[in-house]
Amino acid sequence: MSTDFIAAFYELCARRRDVRTEFTGAPLPEDVLHRILTAAHAAPSVGLSQPWDFVLVRDRATRQRFRDHVHEERRRFAGELSGERAETFSRISVEGIMESTLSIVVTYDPRRGSPAVLGRHAIADAGLYSVCLAIQNLWLAATAEGLGIGWVSFYREDFLRELVGIPSAVRPVAWLCAGPVSELAEVPDLERHRWRERMPLAAVVHDERYPAEPATAPTDAAARSTASAERSTSDSFVDQLDTDTRM
Amino acid sequence: MSTDFIAAFYELCARRRDVRTEFTGAPLPEDVLHRILTAAHAAPSVGLSQPWDFVLVRDRATRQRFRDHVHEERRRFAGELSGERAETFSRISVEGIMESTLSIVVTYDPRRGSPAVLGRHAIADAGLYSVCLAIQNLWLAATAEGLGIGWVSFYREDFLRELVGIPSAVRPVAWLCAGPVSELAEVPDLERHRWRERMPLAAVVHDERYPAEPATAPTDAAARSTASAERSTSDSFVDQLDTDTRM
Repeated sequence: MSTDFIAAFYELCARRRDVRTEFTGAPLPEDVLHRILTAAHAAPSVGLSQPWDFVLVRDRATRQRFRDHVHEERRRFAGELSGERAETFSRISVEGIMESTLSIVVTYDPRRGSPAVLGRHAIADAGLYSVCLAIQNLWLAATAEGLGIGWVSFYREDFLRELVGIPSAVRPVAWLCAGPVSELAEVPDLERHRWRERMPLAAVVHDERYPAEPATAPTDAAARSTASAERSTSDSFVDQLDTDTRM
Repeated sequence: MSTDFIAAFYELCARRRDVRTEFTGAPLPEDVLHRILTAAHAAPSVGLSQPWDFVLVRDRATRQRFRDHVHEERRRFAGELSGERAETFSRISVEGIMESTLSIVVTYDPRRGSPAVLGRHAIADAGLYSVCLAIQNLWLAATAEGLGIGWVSFYREDFLRELVGIPSAVRPVAWLCAGPVSELAEVPDLERHRWRERMPLAAVVHDERYPAEPATAPTDAAARSTASAERSTSDSFVDQLDTDTRM
């Protein structure tokens, strides 16, 4: 594809954010929704099983019930934290469930394409992986369309199953808040709140073999070395990518 | 982003293929490799844990050992098939491991960001999901760059672990063949060989609740109805997408 498109695609990857607080509450146009779902459905799937489903939740009462459940789960997680971690955590909002007007529940149905799903013979989770690939297509498409997506992970699968009627054989994979946003943050929320920092690429790329533990040898001499995954630099990843795409 | 870019992005999603036979064997330029890995590393991850690693396998002997293992696993799977299924399966090639010159092993390290990975509190697999999102970024980036990616799923995780030295705490998620291709097939291999067909979008999108079983009610009146996931239409999905992006 064209050089301009390629550069814009990398910009898209760098701009995509997990949105927590920037939803405007404006409705998501139906044609745009149809397009981002079409992108999701165009994802690769093991044995072409297409094991995903998308439940569009607009109902306010359903979202409110989910939001209350998430708050309860957050309280449990907060109870495991102490000191600075607890304080940092308290600043990270999850109000997107109500501040956006649409949520998309994404599920995995392992029965689709059964009994002989090509490629799931040895890797039982390959179908689950496919669902995640679809989510990332949707996420990038939404970002390209100027929308935000926020993935909420603070819930119990059984609660969500009951909430929207997911049968026991089907697994809920994601609750995604979706909608127009005022902006996409330049730096991820968790980094901005100093929960964690982004790692340099070189810390996660290795030649021929997985590094002997503990990992100490980044392979790209041009990158800042890092003694471990936990000690990463704070250099702007967006800047790094920006430089890369101009090579 | 611009209307042109958005249309091109949807074209990218539709063009992306799981490549089996079209690798030219030409080397993958280092700057392109760096860019597609940078895109992968820009993926969202639960609690910003960035739990992925990428092992670049160029060594011919390593790839040959993996290829031989895959052939053995394919023979086992073929043994479970009968008649038409077995015959169809025999036509689907997996020689990309040797026909391309680079393979990328993608792994998941659940220890990264521990002990308190934000959002993995209730959903243990959320870290695994993050790794898949990174893979899809890489896959789309490679496609934009004119490269092909082929995901090989016919292996035992323990074999791959031993092959490239992945520690027991880390999980191998994917073996991706990567490299320049002569072309990307218009129709997925599995569809062309009549293994399975693509489903209409309406069969997997539902309003407010998951459909009562068995699924019988697509929500989009414009789409062809389908009695179940197994009985899908053969209309070209690319055509459908193409129409959508022109709305």
